[in-house]
Amino acid sequence: MVDGVETDTAVTPGYSERKEDYARRMRRIEGQVRGIARMVEEEKYCIDVLTQVSAVTKALQAVALGLLDEHMAHCVVDAARAGGPEAEEKLAEVSAAVGRLVRS
Amino acid sequence: MVDGVETDTAVTPGYSERKEDYARRMRRIEGQVRGIARMVEEEKYCIDVLTQVSAVTKALQAVALGLLDEHMAHCVVDAARAGGPEAEEKLAEVSAAVGRLVRS
Amino acid sequence: MVDGVETDTAVTPGYSERKEDYARRMRRIEGQVRGIARMVEEEKYCIDVLTQVSAVTKALQAVALGLLDEHMAHCVVDAARAGGPEAEEKLAEVSAAVGRLVRS
Amino acid sequence: MVDGVETDTAVTPGYSERKEDYARRMRRIEGQVRGIARMVEEEKYCIDVLTQVSAVTKALQAVALGLLDEHMAHCVVDAARAGGPEAEEKLAEVSAAVGRLVRS
Repeated sequence: MVDGVETDTAVTPGYSERKEDYARRMRRIEGQVRGIARMVEEEKYCIDVLTQVSAVTKALQAVALGLLDEHMAHCVVDAARAGGPEAEEKLAEVSAAVGRLVRS
Repeated sequence: MVDGVETDTAVTPGYSERKEDYARRMRRIEGQVRGIARMVEEEKYCIDVLTQVSAVTKALQAVALGLLDEHMAHCVVDAARAGGPEAEEKLAEVSAAVGRLVRS
Repeated sequence: MVDGVETDTAVTPGYSERKEDYARRMRRIEGQVRGIARMVEEEKYCIDVLTQVSAVTKALQAVALGLLDEHMAHCVVDAARAGGPEAEEKLAEVSAAVGRLVRS
Repeated sequence: MVDGVETDTAVTPGYSERKEDYARRMRRIEGQVRGIARMVEEEKYCIDVLTQVSAVTKALQAVALGLLDEHMAHCVVDAARAGGPEAEEKLAEVSAAVGRLVRS
């Protein structure tokens, strides 16, 4: 990560092409969370704060589902083609990640 | 909000006393979201990004449940005691907020 | 519960009036779950089974949110008016129930 | 599906081997839902009904996550290896199914 020049790693993540899009969405969510922190400091009405929290949660879920899609379409498919223990491992990872998303 | 002297408004929110605690938690979540945005920009491994998103979602839910508790213990209870249309309205608001939390 | 004659208890639940509606909805959900069990036995396509599971989960959530509304509009409001430790207890119960719904 | 003799289809679902396990779990959930319907009819305390609904929702999610795992380990991996439009289609299906689970 030296000077942002050598970001190349052995494994390029599946969302590489749409990286900017996802980063932008996360920045927007960051701004929304900052807005909620400010609402709390200004003692805004509780229900309005909760409405914003639900909106942020939905936005986070949408990013997560998008990243998961990219991951499956690239990493998981590649591993499935290669087969062997790596395929098993990728499936176990995705399974755990989906479980965390469903339960969170 | 001048010098913290005139914080009295017509309606003080139910979380007023623990305002600082909630604001601090939201600031921490803001930092976590910023960290995720950075992970995406640095093309970190997708599954690691998803793990962080699930953690943030859980943290947001915990704040939301806390705020909801305070709201019920103060605003809803007060309205219930006062009775009349305002009690109805508060209940409808809480119901909608819970519905949004459950579905998000 | 002898012959369904003596259902009267000291505490009538808040959903008492709409009991039949909720019972009917639960019976319908029971039928949907039975249908899913049958789909599994007949080795129906996995994605179709998952679609039905999501539909049942949504239906259960809708019943839960409805029951919660009734509970708040009756038991919680009554307890809030009465005040004292029972009000505290009812709020703690509702809070825990909402937490379980949000996390499940 | 005549007499349960000809259940063989061109596509055996991924959960075929553990079919009995999943069917048994769904039957147990069916029993739990029937129990909740009875609780409602007997006007049991609302919070107790909600606790049972949350338990059933969790049990359903666990079945769904299990079926999803099997589906990915078999159908999705097979399609990924075969490649082409079917692989795309399987990924789109899984993505939609995960989205429904996360949002329900």
